[in-house]
Amino acid sequence: MCGIQRSLARDIPGAARTKPDGEVMVSGWVHRIRDMGGISFVVIRDRSGMVQLVLPEAVKAPPAEGPALAAGGVSSAGITLESVVCARGRPALNEKAPGGAEIQVSALEVISRARSDLPYQVNGDAAKMGLETILDNRLLSLRNPRIRAIFNVQATVIEAFSAWLRSRDFTEIKTSKLVWGGTEGGTELFEVDYFDRKVCLAQSPQFYKEAMVASGMERVFEVAPAYRAEKHDTPRHLNEYVSLDIEMGFIESEMDLIELERGLLAHIFEETARKNAADLALWKAAAPDPDCTAKAPVVGYEEAVKLASKISAEAGGARIFDINPEAERILCEWSAKEYGSELVFVNEFPRRYRPFYAYPSDANRTMSFDALFRGLEITTGGRRQHDYDAFVETLPRFGLKLENMQNYAALLRYGCPPHGGFAIGCERLTARILGLASVKEASLFPRDRKRVTP
Amino acid sequence: MCGIQRSLARDIPGAARTKPDGEVMVSGWVHRIRDMGGISFVVIRDRSGMVQLVLPEAVKAPPAEGPALAAGGVSSAGITLESVVCARGRPALNEKAPGGAEIQVSALEVISRARSDLPYQVNGDAAKMGLETILDNRLLSLRNPRIRAIFNVQATVIEAFSAWLRSRDFTEIKTSKLVWGGTEGGTELFEVDYFDRKVCLAQSPQFYKEAMVASGMERVFEVAPAYRAEKHDTPRHLNEYVSLDIEMGFIESEMDLIELERGLLAHIFEETARKNAADLALWKAAAPDPDCTAKAPVVGYEEAVKLASKISAEAGGARIFDINPEAERILCEWSAKEYGSELVFVNEFPRRYRPFYAYPSDANRTMSFDALFRGLEITTGGRRQHDYDAFVETLPRFGLKLENMQNYAALLRYGCPPHGGFAIGCERLTARILGLASVKEASLFPRDRKRVTP
Repeated sequence: MCGIQRSLARDIPGAARTKPDGEVMVSGWVHRIRDMGGISFVVIRDRSGMVQLVLPEAVKAPPAEGPALAAGGVSSAGITLESVVCARGRPALNEKAPGGAEIQVSALEVISRARSDLPYQVNGDAAKMGLETILDNRLLSLRNPRIRAIFNVQATVIEAFSAWLRSRDFTEIKTSKLVWGGTEGGTELFEVDYFDRKVCLAQSPQFYKEAMVASGMERVFEVAPAYRAEKHDTPRHLNEYVSLDIEMGFIESEMDLIELERGLLAHIFEETARKNAADLALWKAAAPDPDCTAKAPVVGYEEAVKLASKISAEAGGARIFDINPEAERILCEWSAKEYGSELVFVNEFPRRYRPFYAYPSDANRTMSFDALFRGLEITTGGRRQHDYDAFVETLPRFGLKLENMQNYAALLRYGCPPHGGFAIGCERLTARILGLASVKEASLFPRDRKRVTP
Repeated sequence: MCGIQRSLARDIPGAARTKPDGEVMVSGWVHRIRDMGGISFVVIRDRSGMVQLVLPEAVKAPPAEGPALAAGGVSSAGITLESVVCARGRPALNEKAPGGAEIQVSALEVISRARSDLPYQVNGDAAKMGLETILDNRLLSLRNPRIRAIFNVQATVIEAFSAWLRSRDFTEIKTSKLVWGGTEGGTELFEVDYFDRKVCLAQSPQFYKEAMVASGMERVFEVAPAYRAEKHDTPRHLNEYVSLDIEMGFIESEMDLIELERGLLAHIFEETARKNAADLALWKAAAPDPDCTAKAPVVGYEEAVKLASKISAEAGGARIFDINPEAERILCEWSAKEYGSELVFVNEFPRRYRPFYAYPSDANRTMSFDALFRGLEITTGGRRQHDYDAFVETLPRFGLKLENMQNYAALLRYGCPPHGGFAIGCERLTARILGLASVKEASLFPRDRKRVTP
């Protein structure tokens, strides 16, 4: 295309400085057109950023088909917004151009002409568009740099999560999402027609990650989809989400896991700040302080409820009886104020709020915890029951029958070390890093009760 | 546990050399017991390897419940196979012990006692066990070091795949597995009850990865499950598998993709050789030569069929009319012999064998390819149709209607660069690196027509 090797937008200022007499070639999507009659300024986007093309009228693209857009949609050179073009020309520094440089175009080719009935304004202000509009036009809204930035950050979250765990002897696993039933219990399962029977989509890899600890792998992680058939539609729920799962053997209590998650999140925040400065800037967001994250406070459940209730009452709010969304918000504010940490852990959850596999620390409490970050629960975890006899004894308390739990039984029956783990909701973490209003914004193609396309 | 900080099995030879008078503590699963009356030799496994414990009779564990195993199942100290124990004692070098060292135990604790009705011989020779036995006892068979080695290699494959692509400006994406229909067409789809409607499990992220290229991300990859409701049960098929997917924009032809895959696989093989030497040794396997992989030959479809047919006929075999499993085997042998490469590409696949989105190079052929490795197709890929008009024109040839393809239409209608990609079957690649007889062995919890547990 256009005869010479492609440069990226981010390389143009350098080329303007080092070889202003040579020609460069760029290609990308037409982001903005300013038509001045005899001359057009066309900004194009590629994966690295944006660069401005300066097009004299002499540089013509073949005429656009169909009705022309209103002013600003078609250049005098016949280019439409969102078309993919390549352009050759001389690079020149220009402080006023995006990225600080532009190209004096000598030749232009339209590689893929965008039809002029564009249903979504890609170069508009994403902050002013409603969530439904953004999601209804997902293929186009993802072209908006601010929206695509969300997924650059998400890629860093996944990379940093995986790299940090590998450096600590964790092995990545991939487990089945088609399961015979829910490990969490409850009715919130999607059913799949699997040949001549019904199976379910996994709510979490809970059983499998415990199985892999017991297999001797000891320390495992998985990045994979998880499914919840919850009917409610809130800014904090998705019916399909990416779960960042961890499980490890030979722990003493949930404090080993909290210590692990502090270090892990500190690393993720550090990497996000380092690699995604431009993405964060588009959202006017800052990654949390890694040092404070590494020392995030831990509050026992009962104390946390009392604390949240007291703060709420002092502000004229309602009393609080459990760790509800309002309590999560209050506790994060408290932690930020008192400890400089936007992350806070609540441990010692009551047995009645936790599944059968939570390890009891006494008759009423478990060694399990939540992590709250910037007002939202992003993690549930804890030590698990590893003792076969205690497991068998516990089942009736949860209305479960041993004959229906044979896989779990087999897991614990032949040598299983004390272990535990947790899961981080990838979309929730991404959303809270950037300050998104809804977790759906942090899912490329979110699934909710009414949305299954695109 | 046992009072002092845990060491791993791999650290014991070093400890025996540097501080033979200090005590160490190890914990893990009881792999083998040799009871010599007054003294027992107990080999334990942890995530890092194995170490031998030397147990004088004086060191007793509490008695095992239930009927004792036959000789070799319980030590004179009362320990059962597969129990999780921790042991403290002095490290000593011993050339005859696994790993070259042992521990003279002074204290022992049983952390989790394995029941003595162990239904699978974990310390047996996995090579002598049938696939069904291995999979029927999956929770225990995964404890066998040779079997677990498969998944150490798989973790490296995934890590190396991701790292190499990131270093080339690819962004990791996570897309929905709940889709409104199959992009590949056909009836091999699993249906999901999604609230008040039916959706399908994605056969591949084909549409989504193309959408992300068109979004301006340009270069994307995904590691995620994919689903095929194929009824046949063969050593090369899984109904749920991990797909290593790649898509990139601004390519000229499938040769750009083949060049990419050569480099990518060379890197994966190099990393496997570097990180998994012990795992490969357990399978008497060697990773392919990276340099030859990077220069793997490319043969056009028609030529490849003729070549395979000729070689088959010369060996007294049947004539060959397409790239069937026998042709895949023959072509790989040919490539290894002629080029030293265990990887070979077949390109220019006929249009009739490829989906609607394959980019035609002429009336009958497409810019698409397969990668064959050690006798098995591990990749299908190619350049895609990016031109909206050509797409609309092509649909009727494939029995497709534009009104049912609105998402694809939207993807191409507003500026889409020339692009293409491919997918590598993670289990197939792992299986061929190690020489496994069935791809099911390379899936932690494989799903086939009859198997949905554990």
